[in-house]
Amino acid sequence: MEKFNSSIAYDRHLWEVDVQGSKAYSRGLEKAGLLTKAEMDRILHGLDKVAEEWAQGTFKLHPNDEDIHTANERRLKELIGETAGKLHTGRSRNDQVVTDLRLWMRQTCARLSALLWELIRTMVDRAEAERDILFPGYTHLQRAQPIRWSHWILSHAVALTRDSERLLEVQKRINVLPLGSGAIAGNPLGVDRELLRAELNFGAITLNSMDATSERDFVAEFLFWASLCMTHLSRMAEDLILYGTKEFSFVQLSDAYSTGSSLMPQKKNPDSLELIRSKAGRVFGREDKEAVFEVSDTMSAVLQVATGVISTLKIHRENMAQALSPDMLATDLAYYLVRKGMPFRQAHEASGKAVFMAETKGVALNQLSLQELQTISPLFSGDVSHVWDYGHSVEQYGALGGTARSSVDWQIGQVRALLQAQQA
Amino acid sequence: MEKFNSSIAYDRHLWEVDVQGSKAYSRGLEKAGLLTKAEMDRILHGLDKVAEEWAQGTFKLHPNDEDIHTANERRLKELIGETAGKLHTGRSRNDQVVTDLRLWMRQTCARLSALLWELIRTMVDRAEAERDILFPGYTHLQRAQPIRWSHWILSHAVALTRDSERLLEVQKRINVLPLGSGAIAGNPLGVDRELLRAELNFGAITLNSMDATSERDFVAEFLFWASLCMTHLSRMAEDLILYGTKEFSFVQLSDAYSTGSSLMPQKKNPDSLELIRSKAGRVFGREDKEAVFEVSDTMSAVLQVATGVISTLKIHRENMAQALSPDMLATDLAYYLVRKGMPFRQAHEASGKAVFMAETKGVALNQLSLQELQTISPLFSGDVSHVWDYGHSVEQYGALGGTARSSVDWQIGQVRALLQAQQA
Amino acid sequence: MEKFNSSIAYDRHLWEVDVQGSKAYSRGLEKAGLLTKAEMDRILHGLDKVAEEWAQGTFKLHPNDEDIHTANERRLKELIGETAGKLHTGRSRNDQVVTDLRLWMRQTCARLSALLWELIRTMVDRAEAERDILFPGYTHLQRAQPIRWSHWILSHAVALTRDSERLLEVQKRINVLPLGSGAIAGNPLGVDRELLRAELNFGAITLNSMDATSERDFVAEFLFWASLCMTHLSRMAEDLILYGTKEFSFVQLSDAYSTGSSLMPQKKNPDSLELIRSKAGRVFGREDKEAVFEVSDTMSAVLQVATGVISTLKIHRENMAQALSPDMLATDLAYYLVRKGMPFRQAHEASGKAVFMAETKGVALNQLSLQELQTISPLFSGDVSHVWDYGHSVEQYGALGGTARSSVDWQIGQVRALLQAQQA
Amino acid sequence: MEKFNSSIAYDRHLWEVDVQGSKAYSRGLEKAGLLTKAEMDRILHGLDKVAEEWAQGTFKLHPNDEDIHTANERRLKELIGETAGKLHTGRSRNDQVVTDLRLWMRQTCARLSALLWELIRTMVDRAEAERDILFPGYTHLQRAQPIRWSHWILSHAVALTRDSERLLEVQKRINVLPLGSGAIAGNPLGVDRELLRAELNFGAITLNSMDATSERDFVAEFLFWASLCMTHLSRMAEDLILYGTKEFSFVQLSDAYSTGSSLMPQKKNPDSLELIRSKAGRVFGREDKEAVFEVSDTMSAVLQVATGVISTLKIHRENMAQALSPDMLATDLAYYLVRKGMPFRQAHEASGKAVFMAETKGVALNQLSLQELQTISPLFSGDVSHVWDYGHSVEQYGALGGTARSSVDWQIGQVRALLQAQQA
Repeated sequence: MEKFNSSIAYDRHLWEVDVQGSKAYSRGLEKAGLLTKAEMDRILHGLDKVAEEWAQGTFKLHPNDEDIHTANERRLKELIGETAGKLHTGRSRNDQVVTDLRLWMRQTCARLSALLWELIRTMVDRAEAERDILFPGYTHLQRAQPIRWSHWILSHAVALTRDSERLLEVQKRINVLPLGSGAIAGNPLGVDRELLRAELNFGAITLNSMDATSERDFVAEFLFWASLCMTHLSRMAEDLILYGTKEFSFVQLSDAYSTGSSLMPQKKNPDSLELIRSKAGRVFGREDKEAVFEVSDTMSAVLQVATGVISTLKIHRENMAQALSPDMLATDLAYYLVRKGMPFRQAHEASGKAVFMAETKGVALNQLSLQELQTISPLFSGDVSHVWDYGHSVEQYGALGGTARSSVDWQIGQVRALLQAQQA
Repeated sequence: MEKFNSSIAYDRHLWEVDVQGSKAYSRGLEKAGLLTKAEMDRILHGLDKVAEEWAQGTFKLHPNDEDIHTANERRLKELIGETAGKLHTGRSRNDQVVTDLRLWMRQTCARLSALLWELIRTMVDRAEAERDILFPGYTHLQRAQPIRWSHWILSHAVALTRDSERLLEVQKRINVLPLGSGAIAGNPLGVDRELLRAELNFGAITLNSMDATSERDFVAEFLFWASLCMTHLSRMAEDLILYGTKEFSFVQLSDAYSTGSSLMPQKKNPDSLELIRSKAGRVFGREDKEAVFEVSDTMSAVLQVATGVISTLKIHRENMAQALSPDMLATDLAYYLVRKGMPFRQAHEASGKAVFMAETKGVALNQLSLQELQTISPLFSGDVSHVWDYGHSVEQYGALGGTARSSVDWQIGQVRALLQAQQA
Repeated sequence: MEKFNSSIAYDRHLWEVDVQGSKAYSRGLEKAGLLTKAEMDRILHGLDKVAEEWAQGTFKLHPNDEDIHTANERRLKELIGETAGKLHTGRSRNDQVVTDLRLWMRQTCARLSALLWELIRTMVDRAEAERDILFPGYTHLQRAQPIRWSHWILSHAVALTRDSERLLEVQKRINVLPLGSGAIAGNPLGVDRELLRAELNFGAITLNSMDATSERDFVAEFLFWASLCMTHLSRMAEDLILYGTKEFSFVQLSDAYSTGSSLMPQKKNPDSLELIRSKAGRVFGREDKEAVFEVSDTMSAVLQVATGVISTLKIHRENMAQALSPDMLATDLAYYLVRKGMPFRQAHEASGKAVFMAETKGVALNQLSLQELQTISPLFSGDVSHVWDYGHSVEQYGALGGTARSSVDWQIGQVRALLQAQQA
Repeated sequence: MEKFNSSIAYDRHLWEVDVQGSKAYSRGLEKAGLLTKAEMDRILHGLDKVAEEWAQGTFKLHPNDEDIHTANERRLKELIGETAGKLHTGRSRNDQVVTDLRLWMRQTCARLSALLWELIRTMVDRAEAERDILFPGYTHLQRAQPIRWSHWILSHAVALTRDSERLLEVQKRINVLPLGSGAIAGNPLGVDRELLRAELNFGAITLNSMDATSERDFVAEFLFWASLCMTHLSRMAEDLILYGTKEFSFVQLSDAYSTGSSLMPQKKNPDSLELIRSKAGRVFGREDKEAVFEVSDTMSAVLQVATGVISTLKIHRENMAQALSPDMLATDLAYYLVRKGMPFRQAHEASGKAVFMAETKGVALNQLSLQELQTISPLFSGDVSHVWDYGHSVEQYGALGGTARSSVDWQIGQVRALLQAQQA
């Protein structure tokens, strides 16, 4: 049974915040007159000793320590004697557990936030530097329209800014003090919860003691945040895996992020990307403390690997250019007719006819002669040749959010501004 | 294949917002010079006609209408002719679908917000009215400590205020305009996205056209919001089901929210509560448009039923009072010793001995004589008799968030203030 | 409340089995002496009338019909009067609901089984016909080794045979009669459950009345079965989507299974495959009656679409052949050295050196001269030229399960035999 | 990156089966002429040495050992030199990983099967010994009908027999040999897979090398099995938690399976049951190797704790008897009228009227006088007094699966027979 129940294996992450929480609580007890100044000092000193042992790796767990909280209190008693027994006055195990968890998650989220910003910054820098490279935009894995390579990078960076925004909201709800809630009815000993809040630097205090000790909304929120963020990273990884295949050959992973095969000598597998993709499935479905520790580690690793991958990725701009084909300008061909006054639905149909004609004749779309085009619509004239310029194509998409250079620059500016605002 | 692909069955909810979006887009086309004023007016008028047909139930779907968007455009063409073909200029199906979905969800979330506030208000009113009723607080389904009935109500109301806060955040991210993103590269025709935003009253515009047409974070966020809110309602329902059993007999559901058994004539089943509880499982695990419609309906029904249940619930205050037993004051007995200077760990142990002594003698904890208590600790004296007063017990828990009357009043005030702030 | 509770919208699927179950039960009541022969005949005749109305679409639902079972009994009473009130004797609603559900799922699973067999048969036929076409086998989306196209088809067909086997097991556990379990304590009126079992052609009867009316293991099993089967179909669809891209160009979907884009005239999207892939996510996470109906429909559609896709798929064998490249024979080059006596780990390393040498020199692996190879290992001699024949390569993989022609033939035979055994 | 990728932390469970698989494979290589007898002996001897080091805890992991397979091969090379390099000939890492995993899961499932049988046996023994104790059967947590306590035990035991049956099916599909599949194309070196199968005692060999190395259906099946089994254990735990509350007081957990509260001295929390219940949520949602190890441990612990709980549970038969109340016989009262010829629907209504009359008069249902009952129906006569005997009530439910003593005996016999058949 003891083994079944014991959580010490995974909650040892909490040693530091447990000491921190206990120190604040002993100050609260002193102010409430439940500890003398001398007793408080003895406890504070003992707790510092406990922390020191953890930090130096000399803390010894006993087989009976069922969790980090009992372990620390047991050790404190060994160090300072019976006074240790006063520390838990009016505090329940749930009270303490949830306070520690919030303290730990506050730290962790701050770190994850910084890693996420670092990744976004890396992406935006790269987007800025490689603004002039064009390649095919895909929908349904079919070549759709020419876009800027930076437009692709930014599509993923923008998704990550939402994760960053959401994380700030989660952090706000984590940063609420439950300590002083007792088991269920509250604290009956005059402990000043405002003092505890200030000591531990929380933003607010919980409103209801029953709710405070039992609710784990912030855990579910954190896990949901992680799952959504992982989904975004996973999609980016999926694109890059594809772009790195022999068949696409748009990008090449740095060797530092690839591994070989035990059987096939020629293979270089994109293991870093596959791990990012596969980790996405790992962060769902559990709502417990263990999940928080595991998911935090995963997110931290994944964000760093993603930053490494992006910053070292080699791109093959000539392959990108070669992958652009005239049929991807069929939409532009329709817009050409629209600009000449044809309703879009008819223009779409006319351009479709041109695509079909080219296919039937076995030539590229831009190889159709003007005469041939004019059998489809008399609105075609000599200036249709301007349509076949990929650089000209992307420059049309100048509405905010589009792939024209001005719009890409605007996006870079917007994301940079967001980052600055969030960091403030 | 057509049947396999068709979504018209569930997206007909969208007819109104689809017309709304198309009207704004035709204004954008006119400003960009792609529609003349006369063409725009014809389209606007036609769209109003389409809306009228939907509103009056006279709109006829064709077997080839694969979704609401094609149906509306097909009908528009029947009504106004070829000009209808200009409406889709530079707009992709994804562009349109995601704009419509955001418009619809914006409406729905506003309605759910109002229903949630109504429920919280009902709970707080009840908590205020019944502040003086005491009953057992449970942990692990074991009687733990005496608390106020209102303290229980507020523990659930406070959880719901977090849902309410989260919903506002989701609403903020829903309220962003994607229209003008085209298929992937953006809009090449000079459509002014700021004008579209203002027309449709969105708070902001999306930053990147690829991301804008493909991301559904706001759907996942809404479904997560619903699942967390349902979890809270489900827990409240679970408590009430238990409190309504013969064995607990604390509350009685109104007949309007109970149903009988087809076989057992004496049964009155708490079906409303069981449905609330079972619906919790229904809102998880899917991330598509259909889920949004279904979950919205579920949430709307559940919030209304919960409000009805709470406002009509009959409580048996005498049963509540009788369920309080002296062993629930064992914690207070320990605090009595703490106040006399004993460290809490020892006091906890001493109180445990008293519990054991009473059990062994077969008497209630408050039936132990002073002499008997003094065999456990000499700190016990005549004033221990004050411990056995339940009213006195709850009044000790005066720290913020506790079950003392002053603290419960504070909670009521805090929740009321939150509601007001959120509604503003 | 009524609307909240009502399930009539989705359980109308059950009308037929509900009548079937009631007919059997009335026979049981007659045998137990609770109905006279005349009463039973009146009930049987009335139930046939009810069924006829459903079949002809003339059955009229009343607003008070909360489910299919009450609707049918209400109508029976209108048709034959008070005798209808005897039909429910000793039967609970749960008893009836779970019996109906098992009857309906038995039918449905039989149909899905047949559709699954049809798909597997289509795949095996195609695998047999196209045995001699080679193309690249991929791992991690990187070109790995040459394999037969049929080997790929069979890898998916074999996965589906496991689904087929599992479905038979689920069917066995569905095919157990709960009727005669009452609400919880059982049936007190001497109804002969063996007679009911025989009437309804179930394979066995449930053992415990409490378990029988409440357990839904068979629903969870069915949904799990569907999710695993969908995962397999989804993976096949994913491969085909990739093989159908411009970049791979191995296969081409029939137009019947593709759709265009509303914006981009040149696009042909593999919508059928994308729907198969996306439906995989739809069958998870719910365990209720509604999910069963929805998932059954989805599975039925998906299996038929998959069969259609496979049977009409066009393959580009010349592109497949051209995608084979000498570096994919690096493993065979290592085996060449192994056959000459070198330990595999060294041979793997030597082959890796050859790959690197070819890359450095900018030539294909098979362009290295014998002299060059011999600088890596003296074991290379003139017969190394045999390694560069793709046909020869695949023929080496003759161990059972491999890609040699004999092994592929063996696989075809094994799958055919399995199909026959399962259908028996 | 290395740390990110490394799985050694959790797959060290596999050391034993990895050695076992490698020993079999070296025999296969010898038979295929790729190892001499002497080389094979050297390898076998070296592998035994590796196993010995693991067993004695002296095996030393190196920082570069990325998984158990590379660790063992690295150590083998240190022990026997270059010959070790021949062991991997024609075997891929996937080949080896999936073979090891199947070997390990085969062992684990056998152990879980035995634990599950032990639990079922404990339950059936208890059901047999306590057949004559009656208590309330509940539906919707409302008292429904009197049943035997054994009937409740058996309802859970019967559910577990389905888990036991399903586990046998999963074991059958685990017990299939993948070894000899290479990376993707198969094994080209004439390794005899039938020999490997026989060496490792598998029931069959996989059919297709691509499918064999990539499919993890058996993992998903095992996790699904575990989740369903945990759901059953969780429901039983939920019932027992409730039956152990002060309000129900039907059962009392042994102290060995309860724990106290850090704050409230009188508390005894049913932690063992709560952990069983909470673990149910833990086995869902992941489909990887780590999940298999974790879920196996959880299932093993939970099955043993459940067996311990059931075998030491104390029951309060007098409280059970007192909880039976006359209104729970309302169904029997209706049946009384049915036996006198009244249609059930009318009898149900008449009995409902009696319940209402008793409630209105404030007396128990069996306190209504014959005269009073006759105002409801003239069919009531003196023999109605027999209805009020609880023992008589349960004995009516004699149809197979019901709560009559004969039926409970039949159930015990059936479950015992099932257990014997499954163990054979």
